[in-house]
Parts: sequence; structure tokens; C-alpha cells
Amino acid sequence: MSAQWIPVTRRHVVLAGDLAGTVVFAVEGAIAAIHGGLDLLGVLVLSFIVALGGGVVRDVLIGATPPNAIRDWRYPTLAFAAGLVTFAFHASMTAAPPMVLLTLDAAGLAIFAATGAEKAWDYGITPINAILMGAVTGCGGGVIRDLLLTRTPLILMADIYATAALLGAAVVIGCRKLQWPPAVATALGCLVCFAVRMAAVAFGWQLPRVA
Amino acid sequence: MSAQWIPVTRRHVVLAGDLAGTVVFAVEGAIAAIHGGLDLLGVLVLSFIVALGGGVVRDVLIGATPPNAIRDWRYPTLAFAAGLVTFAFHASMTAAPPMVLLTLDAAGLAIFAATGAEKAWDYGITPINAILMGAVTGCGGGVIRDLLLTRTPLILMADIYATAALLGAAVVIGCRKLQWPPAVATALGCLVCFAVRMAAVAFGWQLPRVA
Amino acid sequence: MSAQWIPVTRRHVVLAGDLAGTVVFAVEGAIAAIHGGLDLLGVLVLSFIVALGGGVVRDVLIGATPPNAIRDWRYPTLAFAAGLVTFAFHASMTAAPPMVLLTLDAAGLAIFAATGAEKAWDYGITPINAILMGAVTGCGGGVIRDLLLTRTPLILMADIYATAALLGAAVVIGCRKLQWPPAVATALGCLVCFAVRMAAVAFGWQLPRVA
Repeated sequence: MSAQWIPVTRRHVVLAGDLAGTVVFAVEGAIAAIHGGLDLLGVLVLSFIVALGGGVVRDVLIGATPPNAIRDWRYPTLAFAAGLVTFAFHASMTAAPPMVLLTLDAAGLAIFAATGAEKAWDYGITPINAILMGAVTGCGGGVIRDLLLTRTPLILMADIYATAALLGAAVVIGCRKLQWPPAVATALGCLVCFAVRMAAVAFGWQLPRVA
Repeated sequence: MSAQWIPVTRRHVVLAGDLAGTVVFAVEGAIAAIHGGLDLLGVLVLSFIVALGGGVVRDVLIGATPPNAIRDWRYPTLAFAAGLVTFAFHASMTAAPPMVLLTLDAAGLAIFAATGAEKAWDYGITPINAILMGAVTGCGGGVIRDLLLTRTPLILMADIYATAALLGAAVVIGCRKLQWPPAVATALGCLVCFAVRMAAVAFGWQLPRVA
Repeated sequence: MSAQWIPVTRRHVVLAGDLAGTVVFAVEGAIAAIHGGLDLLGVLVLSFIVALGGGVVRDVLIGATPPNAIRDWRYPTLAFAAGLVTFAFHASMTAAPPMVLLTLDAAGLAIFAATGAEKAWDYGITPINAILMGAVTGCGGGVIRDLLLTRTPLILMADIYATAALLGAAVVIGCRKLQWPPAVATALGCLVCFAVRMAAVAFGWQLPRVA
């Protein structure tokens, strides 16, 4: 059996990425909740919402109800576990260098934006709306987090964040329109979103605003 | 006809509880709106949202659209009537001792959490998600109220409130998994939620938070 | 061919009104975003949400998913284009007399409230809920805008705005119950909503509130 490998199908890769993104975003939600002075329940709620809120909104909007996060026990379990661990080991988690968190976050954003656009496309949503659904998947959780902490969502005010998600999602949809293989479309979309986000952080890019 | 009774089926009991919970929560929504300085329309909107918002979110998430509160004219009518009465007799309503309001609120929470979890379960939602749907039914309206009044939802910051709803919902789902009769499951779940909530108020229980 | 006209069916009139309302509300969303200090992405997001958010919520609630704005590429394209033009020519847009903006806004509200109630009715929603759905269509986008800018929704605190939407929607549903032709119902509902809103502005009408 030495030369045998468990066959890793694309479906498993997408699921693995999805679960990894869920963990990263759940940890970020928990940290935001702790900084906001919430109690343990608030920490778990924000873990769930930051990790899964964007996907829930996408699924409700494209008519894929019940949403994955409500249908499948693995998503909430994973998000709550990540929140609980963050709550317990808060001191060591926030000691991580900011660049590590930023990089993990960009990776999570890329996975969610690419797979979110892909799912909308597979549900027959038109290109411009499928691209929007990619951005909603990547950014929706963070927007709900900001609303719960009563602050105007950061992504509407500064940074190339939702913009990176839109670009990544657009690459996915463009490749699918050209009938490229789904795996290539998803991989390219992830790559573009991640690269744009990291470059924006590195070079301090900002969108224009009315002076 | 002296020994005859109108047959009270379980369905009628659940409906009666549901409508009673709606009235209690609608009154609370109206009081919050009046304290927040809203006008008559704002009072009626908050009555509707606090009473019915949690159930609407649950129904959208489990795919039971249109939600009960949108399909059935009795729910909005009742919520608006309760809001209108509260608006008209505001002085006497707020003269009620706080313990009365707290007890009625705990009863409403218990009913909504238990029946909300039950409905999700009957729609084939997995246990952990059905328990979450119970808490969403019980607490969702209050969260939307806090967002509309631009304050961080109280249940995320303090008190054993959503936690009581989760425990009550968990009892319902546990009993259903054990194939106990639905009526017993609902009654036990209500009881646990109500008892935990009242004990938390009486003894000042709080969840842990990061210091 | 001199006496020939392109046949303008009612469906085209409703679509034209809907698209005109979308443009007006998108411009208002963009102006609110610019005043709130958002960047270009925030401007486009608020254009989309103010123009289309109410209809999206209505469609999700009545079970008409995916909502029109997510299914049809014309709505987001139009909203984004209006937002972009507002961003580019902000100085001249805000130089318009306030009465022009108020009148256009009242017209947009009337169209959305009347067609929103009509759509809910056509989906079999009961009268009181169909009237609510008309108000949600007309006012929902503005409420989400206020939440994103972290302020209590203005329509809950002052002005005859949602009230005008409710009255217009009630006229639509009343006419439909009397089996009047849909075109007459929609036109009358629009007229009533517009007239009430403009009169409220002109005479400074306000709803009662608890002193």
C-alpha cells in the first residue's frame, strides 16, 4: 500500500479550505468580542457570526435555504470550538504578531470570496450578482460584527478589503464564463484576492473618497 | 353539557402560548421605543420586531418562508394592538413592579425558545442548529431592537438570558432525541429555561469574561 | 407608420417606475455615504442598499428568492452607475435645491410602496402583511442605511414617511380586494403615498409621541 494515497478530490479541498477559513474568522470574531468587553456568550456569538454570517446571508439571498451553516453541524461546532479556545487562551492568541493575523485573515477572505462566488454561480445567479455574493460571503460576517459592536463597518470607510474580495470573485466568474475548469477558476480567484489584499496592506493602498 | 369540555389539543396550547409570548414581548418593545424617544410609528415597529423578529429570522433560516408572522394576520395584529395599548396607557404600564415584567419576560423567553427549537427540529434541522434556532427565536427580537436603538445587544454583554434560552432549547431537543412525547419535551424545556432565567436574576449570576 | 406606437403595457410602466425609483434612491444612498465619510466602496454599497435593500428584504420574507435585485443584473448595474455618477459629480448633485430631492424621494417612496404591496399580494400574502411589505419595500433600504451609519433610523423617530408608505400600500390592497384593475390600484396607491408625504413635508406634520 506504500504508493497509495487517499484520493483528494476537489470537493475535499474546497471543504478543507472552507473549514480552515471558518476557524480563522471565528478566532477573529472572538478577539473582537473580547476587546469589546462581551461575556462568554457574546464571544461565542461573534465567533459564529464572523465565521459564518457572510455565508448565511449569501445562502438566504440565492435561495439555498437552510444555509449550510444551519444545515450542517460541523460549521457551528467548529466556530464555537475556535471561540472557546480563543476565550481560554486569549493572552497567547493576541501575542501573535499582527502580520500573522493579517495574512491568515487575507487567506480566509480569499477562500470565502472565491467559493462564495462559485456557489452563487452554480445556483444560476448572473455574473454581476455572483461577484457580489462572493464579496458578501467574504465580508458579510465582519459587517454584522461591526453592527453588533455599534460601529460603522470598517470596510465601508477604509482599506482595500471588500474590493479585493470583489476582484477575486470576478476572476472566478470570468474563468467560469470562459469555461475553464472550476478548480482553476477557484484557485486563480483565491490567488488574486489574497495578492491584492496583501499588496494593499503592504503599500497602504486606499480607495478614493470625496475630500 | 356540564361535564363537557372543549377539547384542548396540544396545538391549541402551543398557539395560545405563542400568542401570549407575542403580547408580552410586544409590550416590552413598545416600552423600549417610548424610552428611546420614538414616535407612534417607531413604537409599533418595535412592538412588531421584539415580538416577532426572532421567529421571522428563524423561519427565514430554516427555509419556512413566508414566516408565520408574515403569513398569518393574527401575529402582526396582536403585536400592533399590544403596542397601541402600551402607547395609550404608558403611565400605568411602567408603574408595574419590575419583578412582574421580569417574570413575564422570562415566561415569554421560555415559550419562544422551546417552541422555536421544536419547529426547527420538525423541519429536519440537526440538534446543535435546532438549539441555536431556539435561542434565535427567544432572543432575536431583542437583538434587532438594540441594533435599531444603536446599542450593543445587552444579551452579548451580561446576564444569563440567551444562555437560559439555549439550555431550554437543549432540553427540548434532548427529549425529542430520546423520543419522548413532544408535549413533555416542550413543557420541560420551558420549565428549565424559565427556572434558569429566574434563578440568574435572583442570584445575580453572570457568565465569565476576560478580565 | 406615423400613427403607430410601441405598445406600452402595464408591465413596462411598472418596470420603468421601478428603475426610476432605483436611480433616485441610489443617488440618495451615495449622498448619505459621502456625508458619512465613506470611501468609494462604501458609496457604492450604500447606493445598492438604499435602492434595493427594501425590495430584497421583502422578497426574502415573502419567499420570492432569489430576490429580483440578486436575480436581475439591471438593478445592481443601475444602482452602482447612479452611485458612481453621484461620487464623480458630488458638488453639482448637492447643489440641487432640497425641494427637488424631497419631491423625487417622495416619488420613489410612492412607487416602491405601491409596487411592493402589489407583489406581496400577488404572492398570496394576507392584506395586513402585504401592506407591511409595501412599507418595508419603501423604507427598508433607508433603515439599513441608518444602521450602517450607526444611527437610530430616522423614520422611527420623526416625520410622516413610513406612515405615507403604509397608507399608499393600504390603498393598493384595498383596491385589489375590491377587484379593481391592478393598474388603477397601483396608480391610486402611488398618488396617495406621494400626496400624504408631500403634505406632511409642507405642513410639518408629525406623529404623536409620549411626552
